[in-house]
Amino acid sequence: MMDIRACLFDVFGTVVDWRTSVSRDLAAFAKQKGITGIDWLEFAVEWRKLYQPSMDDVRSGRRAFTILDVLHRESLDKLISRYRIKGLSEADIEHMNRAWHRLDPWPDAVHGLTRLKSKFVIAPCSNGNIALMVDMAKRAGLPWDCILGAETARAYKPMPDAYLRSCAQIGLEPGSVMMVAAHNHDLKAAKAQGIKTAFVPRPAEHGPGQITDLTADSGCVDVPARDFIDLAAKLGC
Amino acid sequence: MMDIRACLFDVFGTVVDWRTSVSRDLAAFAKQKGITGIDWLEFAVEWRKLYQPSMDDVRSGRRAFTILDVLHRESLDKLISRYRIKGLSEADIEHMNRAWHRLDPWPDAVHGLTRLKSKFVIAPCSNGNIALMVDMAKRAGLPWDCILGAETARAYKPMPDAYLRSCAQIGLEPGSVMMVAAHNHDLKAAKAQGIKTAFVPRPAEHGPGQITDLTADSGCVDVPARDFIDLAAKLGC
Repeated sequence: MMDIRACLFDVFGTVVDWRTSVSRDLAAFAKQKGITGIDWLEFAVEWRKLYQPSMDDVRSGRRAFTILDVLHRESLDKLISRYRIKGLSEADIEHMNRAWHRLDPWPDAVHGLTRLKSKFVIAPCSNGNIALMVDMAKRAGLPWDCILGAETARAYKPMPDAYLRSCAQIGLEPGSVMMVAAHNHDLKAAKAQGIKTAFVPRPAEHGPGQITDLTADSGCVDVPARDFIDLAAKLGC
Repeated sequence: MMDIRACLFDVFGTVVDWRTSVSRDLAAFAKQKGITGIDWLEFAVEWRKLYQPSMDDVRSGRRAFTILDVLHRESLDKLISRYRIKGLSEADIEHMNRAWHRLDPWPDAVHGLTRLKSKFVIAPCSNGNIALMVDMAKRAGLPWDCILGAETARAYKPMPDAYLRSCAQIGLEPGSVMMVAAHNHDLKAAKAQGIKTAFVPRPAEHGPGQITDLTADSGCVDVPARDFIDLAAKLGC
């Protein structure tokens, strides 16, 4: 069907379940610290809401490229203040910030990636920084061939350079690369740069009642798949 | 002994045997193409001699950062001219250039790296570019956690940034990182940035009669090891 040599993956939401993982991690830490009265699921969702706006100053060029660990920390500081959480040490806050390094994969992710790795170069093309991706992969067993994405490209998705430099760094033309994501807007941006696309639905990413990204947008998706295992089968792995 | 969290590796000569691999690869290609009368071992050694000088314009700042695949190609073009090799197509020359993507590991490398990976983040810190390292790793089974080095750092070793940015990209202080190399000069440069060091001799890197880097320089080496398996044992893996 196509001469694909590498699969690049969105990570937050597509490979891992950030919502359950961050809220569970923070709740466990709060319990240990004796912090009460916070809805950590709400807190995780609020944290995630600050994610896209936090990258806008970098995307616009008003701010020099800054890794996501730093942007996450700035957002966390705002939330700690908004929720009036007291008594946290610098080490405590850093531990909380690294909840994003400790995200659990969706059940099909490791098996599917392992099959895809047998035939393709597999790498994240995430807005997460290298250390975040490496820590997550070692904990979760994600068998990446290398770590690509915002930090290596010095550009945040959906800016074209985030995709194009990732392809160039593995020595491939965009047409030989497939972007895999649970978000149609990510695939639309990749497709605009000539990259092939695969959509995998993650209908629980945003919890019950999710109404976005339940199905592939046929305008920008080359290969719709049920999960990573189905994708591996569809790509002949 | 030390709180090491990651091991970074020199690659050409330390992890893989470039001399045997490049010469064998080129000889096989030449035979297929009917090219005769070239000593491909000498050719590989001459190509490698152009390696350090080719990076100097980048190190000095006279030239914008340029990946090693491009520098290798410029050196190869010089040698093709010097050896008066005729009749090669662009695809032929690109295939020859990618001999550096097809290097075989020393016999202990994959096993030793696999053991080290159980305890540490393992990554190349090589002057080779990402695509070169990824292709090599997939072919040889090198189980890197991520690819670091000149291209991610935008600096060629032994410039301090090549080491320091590699540490920063995995979120670690230099003192929590160990550089592993078969070359004392590489370890000296890493040590000067506060990085821990391990020396592994590769006495056949330069063929019979090698007189350099046969033993660790005690002035810059924290851990001398016989090979990667011995290093894993010494680091408690």
